Amino acid sequence: MSAHPRLSMNQATIKYATLDEALRVTREGGYASIGLWREPVQQLGLDEAARRLADSGLRMSSLCRGGFFTLPEGAARREALDDNRRAIDETAALASAGAPGSAAVLVLVAGGIPAGSTDLVGARGRVADALAQLAPYAASAGVTLAIEPLHPMYASDRAVVSTLKQALDLAEPFDADAVGVVVDTFHVWWDPEVFAQITRAGASGRIASYQVCDWQPPRPAYVLLGRHYPGDGVIDFPPLYRAVAAAGYTGDIEVEIFNADICSRDGEAVLTDVIERFRTHVG
Amino acid sequence: MSAHPRLSMNQATIKYATLDEALRVTREGGYASIGLWREPVQQLGLDEAARRLADSGLRMSSLCRGGFFTLPEGAARREALDDNRRAIDETAALASAGAPGSAAVLVLVAGGIPAGSTDLVGARGRVADALAQLAPYAASAGVTLAIEPLHPMYASDRAVVSTLKQALDLAEPFDADAVGVVVDTFHVWWDPEVFAQITRAGASGRIASYQVCDWQPPRPAYVLLGRHYPGDGVIDFPPLYRAVAAAGYTGDIEVEIFNADICSRDGEAVLTDVIERFRTHVG
Repeated sequence: MSAHPRLSMNQATIKYATLDEALRVTREGGYASIGLWREPVQQLGLDEAARRLADSGLRMSSLCRGGFFTLPEGAARREALDDNRRAIDETAALASAGAPGSAAVLVLVAGGIPAGSTDLVGARGRVADALAQLAPYAASAGVTLAIEPLHPMYASDRAVVSTLKQALDLAEPFDADAVGVVVDTFHVWWDPEVFAQITRAGASGRIASYQVCDWQPPRPAYVLLGRHYPGDGVIDFPPLYRAVAAAGYTGDIEVEIFNADICSRDGEAVLTDVIERFRTHVG
Repeated sequence: MSAHPRLSMNQATIKYATLDEALRVTREGGYASIGLWREPVQQLGLDEAARRLADSGLRMSSLCRGGFFTLPEGAARREALDDNRRAIDETAALASAGAPGSAAVLVLVAGGIPAGSTDLVGARGRVADALAQLAPYAASAGVTLAIEPLHPMYASDRAVVSTLKQALDLAEPFDADAVGVVVDTFHVWWDPEVFAQITRAGASGRIASYQVCDWQPPRPAYVLLGRHYPGDGVIDFPPLYRAVAAAGYTGDIEVEIFNADICSRDGEAVLTDVIERFRTHVG
């Protein structure tokens, strides 16, 4: 079975695989593109990971992830910003090594409210400060920082950026090449403003990544793993697809599913399922 | 210990209590107001429940709940609307029986996306249709329908109304006496627009109820029970309190906590805790 030409397999969907294994099953599964995560890249070392990506012939659609910008001033915050500079370097190197059409896009998760704090407003302000510090570095590396709003159920512990509007407000002071946004159906499907904000993102060329997976009630016990194959939940994908296309996004479309059942299955079977689900439900 | 004069105990916080028991512990706990639920009222019958509320000397701050407006046309939808008319009648009767200052406010939960559907937009449209059918009935009964936006994590299965902005948009076609909104800190704290929308609600006199409880990470396995005492989580209550006050809301403030540990505790102890937490964190 051959995949939709813009379909990309986010590595987290088959997360027990090493980078080598993920590249192999993705290529053999008929995909032309993969979304990478930093940890498996770092296990091999950046240079070696870049060589193997080049050898695979796959495009890289994004690198996950930087961010975690909400810590107050101090050593831990400085280390987080340094780590983001390394992530920018990794993104540039991998995008150069991947097949033509690779995207030098670093996905950013804003970070939650620091332990013991109730200062949501302050935490959001520190996200804006971190972007201002990193955007010039990203621009000079040719990398786009892609702010990913996460569903509001993660607002306390993972991402104080909860809506596409917020992400676009944060991106607005910067060139669109340096700071964009991620549209992930799982995180934004519920938002009454989602179509208006996708249109707004298109007008400023800010959509750096489009990611799809489904939302299925009831929610599972472990909040991070409740993502589903497109078609297994409540999300109406075609209007979102059309909106993102109308907004000018022509890049790869990542399927990123965190789901304990899917993660523990055979990678090849998952890749085949995703091709079929994508064809039926997403495009 | 005596309670803040505007503090109201929502009966769900001590939900294993019968109406009699809830009225008794609330009054003896030093509260002047209680938020009631329909089921314990119906167990006694409306007339008897109204007599016992009158005997208690307590105010009623709201009745939970009506709504569930997202079903498509058919018998089940007509039955849901009839049930809402009964809920309006109950609200009027109980508010008359309660002590002066009782609020004839019926809390509405919009309802989720019907099983098997992905039509979020259609479901939202049916909420608006139901309000249009019920608002005249509520107005003639002197009851305010109070739309409660629920946190977006409930958008699929409980409430397709997720933000205060959405609730206010739905309320706007109607007189503020007939259709208002509930501001519940648990549901709206994460919203970047929350302060602007509270101000907007104030300008049109739409805040029919203010409810408080806290949000604590990590989220529990059962998504409906993850509410906490004010002060145990990430919500910054004083700015919300000030915003609601500046918006002109002078009614009772309900503490509504769904939490398995708290529910299974002795009611008197919970009421005492809430008085202290309210004094320290909310006002």
